Amino acid sequence: MDPDAVSKAFVEHYYSTFDNNRVGLASLYQENSMLTFEGQKFQGAQSITTKLTSLPFQQCQHHITTVDCQPSGPAGGMLVFVSGNLQLSGEQHALKFSQMFHLMPTPQGSFYVFNDIFRLNYA
Amino acid sequence: MDPDAVSKAFVEHYYSTFDNNRVGLASLYQENSMLTFEGQKFQGAQSITTKLTSLPFQQCQHHITTVDCQPSGPAGGMLVFVSGNLQLSGEQHALKFSQMFHLMPTPQGSFYVFNDIFRLNYA
Repeated sequence: MDPDAVSKAFVEHYYSTFDNNRVGLASLYQENSMLTFEGQKFQGAQSITTKLTSLPFQQCQHHITTVDCQPSGPAGGMLVFVSGNLQLSGEQHALKFSQMFHLMPTPQGSFYVFNDIFRLNYA
Repeated sequence: MDPDAVSKAFVEHYYSTFDNNRVGLASLYQENSMLTFEGQKFQGAQSITTKLTSLPFQQCQHHITTVDCQPSGPAGGMLVFVSGNLQLSGEQHALKFSQMFHLMPTPQGSFYVFNDIFRLNYA
């Protein structure tokens, strides 16, 4: 398994789901997952999905600029660090953002999001 | 131990050391530590310190904008996500950056940097 390929595939899947079927993100989190969104903390797949689906915009498109990845330790996790632009429908300028994910392996051989921290990069 | 207080203290110590005694950063990394700096990968305290002390600027000042922190799992680690500005000596405009650290506990009750990913936020 190539960690760079796994993280790139995860990132593509995550943002494609966010932009096209946001409620589907629930399957990427579990009960012990954490999200810090612009400083606000949420725990658990349901609470996280409620936050992400109630953001004050519906249509959006994420454009990824960089993806960096490192193994997070002996438990088989991966840290994925993303920078990119978030284009909201009807807005002229895209928002720049940075986001990190800590992916942990599942017994089924896949990964789920254990840690998720999101920040807009204000000018 | 309050994770937010620990991460804030770490961040202050890290950037103060970076700005005033960059070679002193070596003590914050260990042999299994990883740095990805603008996409370039380094492993081990010596290789990481060599990179950080050979950056093409000497005087600099980091100004922190946000610090977010989450526990990284049962091993007692912490994820710290930082955004801020990097002011280089003699440059008019500061550079915006985002950086994440994965801190792991040491037997002495302190923390070392296991993962470190740094990116400038280009306009």
